[in-house]
Order: sequence, then C-alpha cells, then structure tokens
Amino acid sequence: MSLIVQKYGGTSVGDVDRIRNVAARVARCRATGDDLVVVVSAMAGETNRLLGLATQMHPDADGREKDVLIATGEQVTVALLAIALKAAGCPAVSFLGHQVRIATDSAFGKARIKSIDAGRIGTALAAGNVVVVAGFQGVDGNDNITTLGRGGSDTSAVALAAALHADGCEIYTDVEGVFTSDPRICPDARKLDRISYEEMLELASLGAKVLQIRSVEFAKRYSVPLHVRSTFSEAEGTWVVEEEASMEDVLVSGVTYDRDEAKITLVRVPDQPGLAARVFGPIADANIGVDMIIQNASADGTTDLTFTVPKADFRQALALIEAHARDLGAEGVRTDIDVAKVSIVGLGMRSQAGVAAAMFRALADVGINIQMISTSEIKVSVVVDAKSVELAVRVLHDAFIGDKQASRAEGV
Amino acid sequence: MSLIVQKYGGTSVGDVDRIRNVAARVARCRATGDDLVVVVSAMAGETNRLLGLATQMHPDADGREKDVLIATGEQVTVALLAIALKAAGCPAVSFLGHQVRIATDSAFGKARIKSIDAGRIGTALAAGNVVVVAGFQGVDGNDNITTLGRGGSDTSAVALAAALHADGCEIYTDVEGVFTSDPRICPDARKLDRISYEEMLELASLGAKVLQIRSVEFAKRYSVPLHVRSTFSEAEGTWVVEEEASMEDVLVSGVTYDRDEAKITLVRVPDQPGLAARVFGPIADANIGVDMIIQNASADGTTDLTFTVPKADFRQALALIEAHARDLGAEGVRTDIDVAKVSIVGLGMRSQAGVAAAMFRALADVGINIQMISTSEIKVSVVVDAKSVELAVRVLHDAFIGDKQASRAEGV
Repeated sequence: MSLIVQKYGGTSVGDVDRIRNVAARVARCRATGDDLVVVVSAMAGETNRLLGLATQMHPDADGREKDVLIATGEQVTVALLAIALKAAGCPAVSFLGHQVRIATDSAFGKARIKSIDAGRIGTALAAGNVVVVAGFQGVDGNDNITTLGRGGSDTSAVALAAALHADGCEIYTDVEGVFTSDPRICPDARKLDRISYEEMLELASLGAKVLQIRSVEFAKRYSVPLHVRSTFSEAEGTWVVEEEASMEDVLVSGVTYDRDEAKITLVRVPDQPGLAARVFGPIADANIGVDMIIQNASADGTTDLTFTVPKADFRQALALIEAHARDLGAEGVRTDIDVAKVSIVGLGMRSQAGVAAAMFRALADVGINIQMISTSEIKVSVVVDAKSVELAVRVLHDAFIGDKQASRAEGV
Repeated sequence: MSLIVQKYGGTSVGDVDRIRNVAARVARCRATGDDLVVVVSAMAGETNRLLGLATQMHPDADGREKDVLIATGEQVTVALLAIALKAAGCPAVSFLGHQVRIATDSAFGKARIKSIDAGRIGTALAAGNVVVVAGFQGVDGNDNITTLGRGGSDTSAVALAAALHADGCEIYTDVEGVFTSDPRICPDARKLDRISYEEMLELASLGAKVLQIRSVEFAKRYSVPLHVRSTFSEAEGTWVVEEEASMEDVLVSGVTYDRDEAKITLVRVPDQPGLAARVFGPIADANIGVDMIIQNASADGTTDLTFTVPKADFRQALALIEAHARDLGAEGVRTDIDVAKVSIVGLGMRSQAGVAAAMFRALADVGINIQMISTSEIKVSVVVDAKSVELAVRVLHDAFIGDKQASRAEGV
C-alpha cells in the first residue's frame, strides 16, 4: 500500500461535471488500496474573477486582504470535491491551509512554505478517508491566511508529499506531460517519459508552463518523484526524477521559448568598477527580475551593457535606467521589446562540448540573427527577433531532438 | 468613546459599489471616535449560488463540506470591505470565524455559538483598526468550519457585542426598522421607535423577517440593545431593548402573518392517554417542527386532532400520519394547505383582558372564519383561509393600531 499525493489544476476542476470526473478517478485509485491526499486548485477562472473584484475595489488592494479573498477559490473546490467523493461512496474530508497548518512566511501573495503539520492528515487517512487539501494557501505565524503565488498548488502538493513521506506526487493537468517542445509551434514535439529535476527546473524557468518552478525545487530538495500527467486520459505522463545515468546520453531534452522579454541597452557607458551595481541596484529595489545580462567592453574604455526584463516591467525599468543614464555617463539608451528567448536544455551538455556552437550554426543556417547569448551547465539561451521564434524552435528541435535523438521520448 | 458592533446584511453589501458605500459609512462612524466591529453577510445571492453548486454536485450534500463551501461567501465580503476601508484611509483588518475563535457546537448548517475569544479583536481595536468579522460562521471543537443557519450573521453580531461588552449593536438592513405590520399589504403600517425583546421574539417567530430569532434571544439574554436601521438612510430605526414601563400601555405593537403553514387533521380518533405522544413522536423524530396543535374532545369518546407544519414539511408529515392513522383508530385524515396564520403581539395583553375577544370580533365583522386559535402571554394567533390573510392583517391593524393607538410608532 502506497501513499500518493495527487494534484488537480484549475482546468481539471473547471466545473461541477469535471469535479465529479476527478472524484471518480480518485475513487478508482483509492479502490486499489492506496492512501490518497488530493490537492486542488481553484476552478478555472475563479482566481482571476476574485482578483477582478479586488481590483474593482481598489487598484492597489491590501495584500493581506487579497489573500483572504482569493483563498476562497480553493476552499470552494475542496468542499465540492469532498461532497462528490462522499456521494460516490468514498469517505473523504477536506482541509484548508490553516486546518493542517501549512505554515508559511508572511509574504502575502507569494508566501513560502516553512512546515506542514502532518498529524491531522495522518489521523484522517488512518480513519480511511481520502484527504482533500486546498492548494495555493497557507497560514503565517499570526494565523493570517497567505497564498503562494501563481501555480502555488503544485508547490502545496509537493510540500505535502515531502511532509507525509509520500511514495509519489502526481500532477494532473490538461496536457499529457512534459514535451520536448511546445506542440503548438513544433509539430514534432513529443512527450518525454522521464526528465531530471535539473532539466525541469531549467525548462520551468525558461518559460515552460507545466510546473511552477518552486514546486520543482521542493521536489528536488526532498527527492519527491513527480508524475506530470493528464486528467483526461489514463496514459502515463512524464516522470520528473533524480538524475539517472542514461540521461546524460541525451544531449538536448527540450527546446523552449519565452516571448515575455524586453531588451534594454545602455550605449557606450564608461566602464568603471561598480558600474553593474549602480545600474542594477535600483532595478532590484523595484523588485524587477532581470533575466539575461551582457556586457561587452570596447577598446575605448566604454561598454555596451544590455539586459532583458519581463515585458510587464519594461516601462518601469526603462524609467529607472533613463533617470541614471546621464550620471553613468552613457551616450544613450536603446530598447527593443520585439525580442524573445529560445533555449535548449539537456544534461548531456555537461559532458559534451560543442553543443552551443552547433546551436548557433543551426540558427545561422536559416538566417536567424542572435542578439544575446547566455549559458549555464545544462542550457544555452539566445535572444532573437520576436518574429523568428517559431522558426528557431523548429530548427533547434530538428537539429537536436528530431526523430532519432529522442531516446527518452514516448514510444522510442 | 463607545464600542459599537455594526452588522450589514447581504443587500447592503450586494456589489462592489455598495460595499464601498458601507466602507464610507463605517469610516464616518469611526471618525467620531467610536471603536467599531463590523460584521458582514455574504453578498446578496452568493450563499444561494454556492448552495446551488453543492446541490448540483449532490442533492443531499455532506453537511460539514457544505459549511466549508458556503463560509466562503462571508470570507469574500470581509476581504473586500477591509480593502475598501484601507483604500479610504481607515485602518482595518478582517477576521474569519476561526481566527477569532467563534466557537460553536458541531451542528453543521445550524450551529450554535458557545463562546468567542475577544482577545484578538481587542488587540486589533487597540491598534486603531476597524475590525471586520465574517458573520454566519464559526468553528467547532475540532477546528471544523461551521455555519449558523439563515440569518446567522445577526446572531454573530449580537454574540460579538455580548462577548466584547459593546455599548450597542446596530443591525443594518434594507428596511428602515421594525414595522407595526408588513407595509406591502398594510399601507398604514409604521415604523416602531422601540420594542421589547419579548415582542420582537414573538414577531420573529411569527414570520417577521427583520431579525433572526436566535439573535433576539441572544440580545435578551445578554441585555444587548439592538438598533435595527437602514443602510440606505441616516434615519433612526427601531431600538429593540429591555421592557420599559410605558410599553405595557400599548395593547398591540404589531400585526404579523405567516403563509408558510399547512394543516393536518386526524378525524375522530379515539381519545386515549398517550395519543398526542404517539402522533407527534414520529414527527419530532423526523425533525419536523409542529407549530399549532388543537384537540377537541367530543362526547362520544373520539377527538379531532389538528396541527400545522411548515409547507415544506407537509408531505413528509402527512406520510407519517397516514402510516399511523389506522393504528390510532382514526376515521381518516383531512388536510388543508391553503391556510395562513395571522397574529397580534403586544406587552399590553398581559394586563388587559378581552384582547383575544376583540380580535375574534374584528375578524367576524368582515366575515373571516377562524379555523384554529393559539394564545400566549403576549400574542394571539389564528389560522384562517389563505385568501383572507391580507384583509385580516388590515382589519386587525385598523382595530388595534390604527392612527391613534400607535403611541410607540414614529412621529406620534
């Protein structure tokens, strides 16, 4: 008998019928003898509806109260799922974040889980119940309701799996698993059977929307095997697991892209010690995440400093840079919001040289100009013209994954 | 400086604009220097919407989970009101039932408040906040969410006023106070300035919808002065208070009616000791509340036993009676669902004889037949044909309240 944590996302519980289908699926799993903890998100669209109410009330609504408001989304779902399970003859009980002490810090809207009291869940499981837990929410040290940020239910599920020493954590979603690329723009993309935490972390941070990045960090830290699969089929999905020996055989396991990038360049700024700190200090203070940074020194003692920020933060970042450009002695500021980032990710890069060079060549062969480059141990990212994104993804998928190379993809 | 508990009902917080208006009103009160605890209901229609989801999921949804579900209604409102107050520059903090330990029994859907932890509210008030508390909800001894039943937010407000030793409890609603009768069918009906707890209890139990009956019991037990008034005007409403000497001068303070009655008669049943217990035992076991009961013995040793039940319980009660009628030796069962109850209530009846007789005469004068009669110390109720209700109410209002007699009504 195993203990499994299952998580169903907003689309999977989008209406009464879908919740009833989830209940039927849960009841079937339970009938095999496994103990089950089920984590659910708010019904699709509900969190946005609630945030809309808050914004209607005030554009800059109080953070604590916004969390009280949006935490109701998951509360509705756990109650409805528990009702459906009991109606199907499957004993069940729902718990909210505060009832199982999903203890977080007090960063409303983006709280981090510190601990979970497994006691109450254990008692309810021992009594034969399926335990339904509200995802996305917790409670801080002063009994205030907190929420974990977009996709936070993934993290709730993984944290519960870690706290309960579960045998696995299944993430049910509206896609069949993790794909080698986005099937909407890359028809050859195929589902991966297995992927390492490290690769998944890179893919998540590079724009793949399947899992919240923090949930992958959590799973890695506590060695929780994740199984990403579809609510709407019985097929196996993708396992996200510890690195395995054979994984290094695959050079590139995924090609991903992110259109949410905007580029800012400080032109011909005198290259002095402390320049980067003076540029990026105010941007960090404004809580803007800078993604890629490139600095090229030229012979005349000046440098072009280029970086990217999320499109939503572009105007604010630009205002901060323009306010400082004269002090920094820059000749000017150049911007481009029609850019996107394309990346390849794979454990095999660690041991095999020349992957980056092969990537640049593949892009050059179809005439795509590379504006920025950034590399890590297991990924290479380039910034290109926004209009070249789809071509770049397809070319790289062909070059590195194609048909033959996809030894980890389904059916190969 | 006083401590006031204010309660705003579902219509008063029916949309974002109305919540903003409530916030403005609360902020004005706060500006006078009073400490304020504000209890709110769910936005009008929200509780029914949530119950609809539960019923869609299963016609007989689990009680514990239904409470988890519908408690979200008030949670949304407290958050939005706190956001609106802060946006208006008025420091505020919201609390849910479990956060201020509104401790109840475990009767889901109709829980009763046992105690309230005033500590956290006191601390928040001392810090200068308006404290916004979710009505209708509490938490049982096992940290399960409970709800108090329809109109339960009134009781939440009164219980908070009692626990906090507040100087008063204002119940804001969509009418201007307690009226001598229903203005929709009795154009002469006028607002009462003051009414005793006892009279209000009778009026509430007889069908007046202004206050939940349990909230009046609570207010009476803890001597909390209630002020029922309109959210949409600045006018004084009706004070519900301890009995005052002058109140007995008024024979009848209100005329009320209840169309939610159905009548069942056991015809010519042998009159034996224990008959009533055998008839009403199974009905009580089915949790059906019987209102009026009349038994008339005749000379031949048989009796007609007549009683009324709420229309919603009529079919079930009838089935129980028919199942037993033969055992009881009854000749048959007669029913009538086209009946209604009309009542007069007033402290003056206690000391003055002949009020009931005057009531019967007034009804006889207009040809209304009385089917059943029930009296208490301060009320007389009669059951009449449903089609005679409006005439009966107007005739009795004319006879006992009219213009001259209404010494407690506004402007007299």
